[in-house]
Amino acid sequence: MGTHINVIEATKQIVPVPLTTVTFLDALGDDLTIVNAARTSFKKRSEWASRECSAQPYHMRAPGQFAQSERNECDQCGAAMRKVLHDRDAGLIRYLMEKHHGTPFEMVTLHFHVDAPIRVMREWQRHRIGSFNEMSTRYVEMEPRMFLPLDEDVRVQEGKPGHYVMRDAPELAPQVKAVMLDAYAQSWAHYEALLGLGVAKELAAYVLPLGLYSEQIWSVNLRSLFNFVALRNHDTALREIRKAAVIVEQQAHKVVPYAMLAFESAGRIVP
Amino acid sequence: MGTHINVIEATKQIVPVPLTTVTFLDALGDDLTIVNAARTSFKKRSEWASRECSAQPYHMRAPGQFAQSERNECDQCGAAMRKVLHDRDAGLIRYLMEKHHGTPFEMVTLHFHVDAPIRVMREWQRHRIGSFNEMSTRYVEMEPRMFLPLDEDVRVQEGKPGHYVMRDAPELAPQVKAVMLDAYAQSWAHYEALLGLGVAKELAAYVLPLGLYSEQIWSVNLRSLFNFVALRNHDTALREIRKAAVIVEQQAHKVVPYAMLAFESAGRIVP
Amino acid sequence: MGTHINVIEATKQIVPVPLTTVTFLDALGDDLTIVNAARTSFKKRSEWASRECSAQPYHMRAPGQFAQSERNECDQCGAAMRKVLHDRDAGLIRYLMEKHHGTPFEMVTLHFHVDAPIRVMREWQRHRIGSFNEMSTRYVEMEPRMFLPLDEDVRVQEGKPGHYVMRDAPELAPQVKAVMLDAYAQSWAHYEALLGLGVAKELAAYVLPLGLYSEQIWSVNLRSLFNFVALRNHDTALREIRKAAVIVEQQAHKVVPYAMLAFESAGRIVP
Amino acid sequence: MGTHINVIEATKQIVPVPLTTVTFLDALGDDLTIVNAARTSFKKRSEWASRECSAQPYHMRAPGQFAQSERNECDQCGAAMRKVLHDRDAGLIRYLMEKHHGTPFEMVTLHFHVDAPIRVMREWQRHRIGSFNEMSTRYVEMEPRMFLPLDEDVRVQEGKPGHYVMRDAPELAPQVKAVMLDAYAQSWAHYEALLGLGVAKELAAYVLPLGLYSEQIWSVNLRSLFNFVALRNHDTALREIRKAAVIVEQQAHKVVPYAMLAFESAGRIVP
Repeated sequence: MGTHINVIEATKQIVPVPLTTVTFLDALGDDLTIVNAARTSFKKRSEWASRECSAQPYHMRAPGQFAQSERNECDQCGAAMRKVLHDRDAGLIRYLMEKHHGTPFEMVTLHFHVDAPIRVMREWQRHRIGSFNEMSTRYVEMEPRMFLPLDEDVRVQEGKPGHYVMRDAPELAPQVKAVMLDAYAQSWAHYEALLGLGVAKELAAYVLPLGLYSEQIWSVNLRSLFNFVALRNHDTALREIRKAAVIVEQQAHKVVPYAMLAFESAGRIVP
Repeated sequence: MGTHINVIEATKQIVPVPLTTVTFLDALGDDLTIVNAARTSFKKRSEWASRECSAQPYHMRAPGQFAQSERNECDQCGAAMRKVLHDRDAGLIRYLMEKHHGTPFEMVTLHFHVDAPIRVMREWQRHRIGSFNEMSTRYVEMEPRMFLPLDEDVRVQEGKPGHYVMRDAPELAPQVKAVMLDAYAQSWAHYEALLGLGVAKELAAYVLPLGLYSEQIWSVNLRSLFNFVALRNHDTALREIRKAAVIVEQQAHKVVPYAMLAFESAGRIVP
Repeated sequence: MGTHINVIEATKQIVPVPLTTVTFLDALGDDLTIVNAARTSFKKRSEWASRECSAQPYHMRAPGQFAQSERNECDQCGAAMRKVLHDRDAGLIRYLMEKHHGTPFEMVTLHFHVDAPIRVMREWQRHRIGSFNEMSTRYVEMEPRMFLPLDEDVRVQEGKPGHYVMRDAPELAPQVKAVMLDAYAQSWAHYEALLGLGVAKELAAYVLPLGLYSEQIWSVNLRSLFNFVALRNHDTALREIRKAAVIVEQQAHKVVPYAMLAFESAGRIVP
Repeated sequence: MGTHINVIEATKQIVPVPLTTVTFLDALGDDLTIVNAARTSFKKRSEWASRECSAQPYHMRAPGQFAQSERNECDQCGAAMRKVLHDRDAGLIRYLMEKHHGTPFEMVTLHFHVDAPIRVMREWQRHRIGSFNEMSTRYVEMEPRMFLPLDEDVRVQEGKPGHYVMRDAPELAPQVKAVMLDAYAQSWAHYEALLGLGVAKELAAYVLPLGLYSEQIWSVNLRSLFNFVALRNHDTALREIRKAAVIVEQQAHKVVPYAMLAFESAGRIVP
């Protein structure tokens, strides 16, 4: 074969990336949106109770005051402030969660940017309630950013399907990572060779590995997000998506702290 | 029967309402969100080109300037300003619409409050891509707000299913409205009588008419909204939902003017 | 008002119907379909273990035998026969249910015909994963079939929203039913009067009550059916939809007995 | 690195597969199901008109006759018979398609088995209305079946994104296929080496290429299938999924011939 496959050059180009990056972009709605969606059933509306900082004892702004100022720092101590629900509204969120009244949680939409290996992306996109826009291997000449685990994430598998056990094996990390890097360099060198022949990117992409990073935007409502984190931030999930789901969950905590706490209290069962 | 049905009292209580009220509440995303969702495929991002007022010739703020000031009025003439896409981005939105690349449009979410007769609500809630929270006839003692058409909306039906023709018949309006009002008063008097007997609201509600107004919150993404207005703002749709769909469409024009124009240019075919 | 509203005639026409009718039409898939959908993950396939009648001790046909004969009666005793899964496959179904692996259950689709009051239909159609085709009040001149509860289903409501209690009140049945029938007769007489004026059916329909019966076909996958019966065959559900959900559940038991038992064993939590 | 990567052995194991295999498994519903779903609106039902063979002139069985015999061969000439709709019912299907009355088409469900490269699978699974069960790279030790194009499917890409042109380049096939095969052998040798180290299959899988074949079961309703074939059996689609979509469409023609013809006549616009 006359085509030159430059694996040495490819090896230099590989950028090893151990973790999926999840970036919160924007949201529509908050805990009060959930409360008021539910209160629509009763033809009622609620308001925030107050805004408080994290000082002990906390400094509070009453609703009338914080309507005038949307500053997020406490005037007195400079600490971050957070909006506080009335007790009955916090209770309502817990009630909705426990009684599986799920639709009010759909009134909150979150947008994320995700930079993940294709293997992780595949699991992510199996979640059908939500929207994705992903980078195209047809239009884009990919960059050689490849998944290489942290030493602590190298694991071996023992037992049978349905009964297998994962065991951490950091002692294997140097060897495993060397094999993976070498595999990626080979894939990349062949991808580049195909492009060098003028082959369509969409055809050359078949030799790219599942460890290649891709990017997507994800729009998801909070109820569907509960389902995502219940399944993916779980000890039986693929570890790489689990670490990403943890970040999704942390970000959601900032947007809807009451709802996320209620979700945890209810045993992480999707309402 | 010993129960007292007070139709005269009920007649006084009926509040005739001719039109569905649609109130835009909030949105996540705008035309640039659509552009950047699509550009994710190419791993690119765009920015707004400028902000312009409606003066002739218009007064413009370049991106650098309007980043500093989010004021919506022109400094020079005081008119409302609007954000302007680069031509290539406006073209991209038209391209997405024509080629049925629908997912970028899902990245915009809109929230509406709807006050509509139950008959209209039923058609609305058949749209499955989206979320609803509606007032509950189980929890709420309803108010006697009832649909009574404008004179111009009274129509007769001639011909067979699949071939019938609607004809406006405003000359019948006084008679039709009198019959409808009387029917509503009867329903209402019986509903009140049942509640007077202590009957559960959820059971008493069976005698309420389809013309009774109810309220809902609606969360919908822009692609699903296209489907809604394509079917409902259409000359074969039920006139009462059509008038509501016109308002939905007008509100969407304010949020995503480029996308709505592209939708119209593409013959109102859902991407 | 010159229009003649003939309530006496309408009263004669009303057909009181106390219960929703649910008719199972057809299904795609059975318990083995679920097993094999799940076994796709392992690139494996299973078969039925045997077919057995209900005699004690049962008469069995081995797979080889029942492939030749699809007769549903036992050759020896004439009793109905049922297909039997291997223990490991029955165990797999329970495992899927408990671990929330829901997609294999989506591989079973069921079709039902439903004849229900509009009030019940409204709750039914809020289930978005599935398909509906309903009779149209625009095209069809409705028949005066109206919901009138059984005596045992008349109930009163006491307490506040979120805290109310339902109490059976069969002693009120005669009075309640008389008021409901009278309300329906009034609605129907006014509907007929509007049609007599030539008013479009879609406009006349606004005076029809929520107790009017309508018909729909429903296509639903088994996972979505689990969600339906979890919410609707529940002691907090509207009693009239609950009774219908019981029938849905009974019919599903005939199609996928192993899956329905697993659903119950797992506490009726949707997988 | 001490791990032995046996590329020569891996090369021998690679099974090159040029095409996705689509196998029709089962269906619920047919053209008459669509007709009767639509006729539910009018509270009407239709029946098949007749059954006819392909002889010229055809031999026909009237409904009364074919109810007794479900044989699919003509009694007179032995040719295959097909069910025939009444003209008004065939016309109704065309009407539904043209007027975008899409729900009756949802009453038909089709099941397929798909054996496709992961790259093709990824595009397939972006279709959210439907259900998938796929082979798991976590549970299964994959087989080295890899996508290698037919000579006629090798193509080069010229121009810019949004404006690129594909050009067939069969003259490059030997070289392109050699590079791809070599890339796959490298990936496979490294995957095997990782498994040889005891690495968990789910971790080793990151080095597998997008050209690796995987398997899935797909349940899809006919309306969603229209969307699939409109987008994927299209000259702008990835060629490999297009060839698969052609088979999906051919199979659908056997299940619902009237509906598929109506879809084509209506310009392949999804109803």
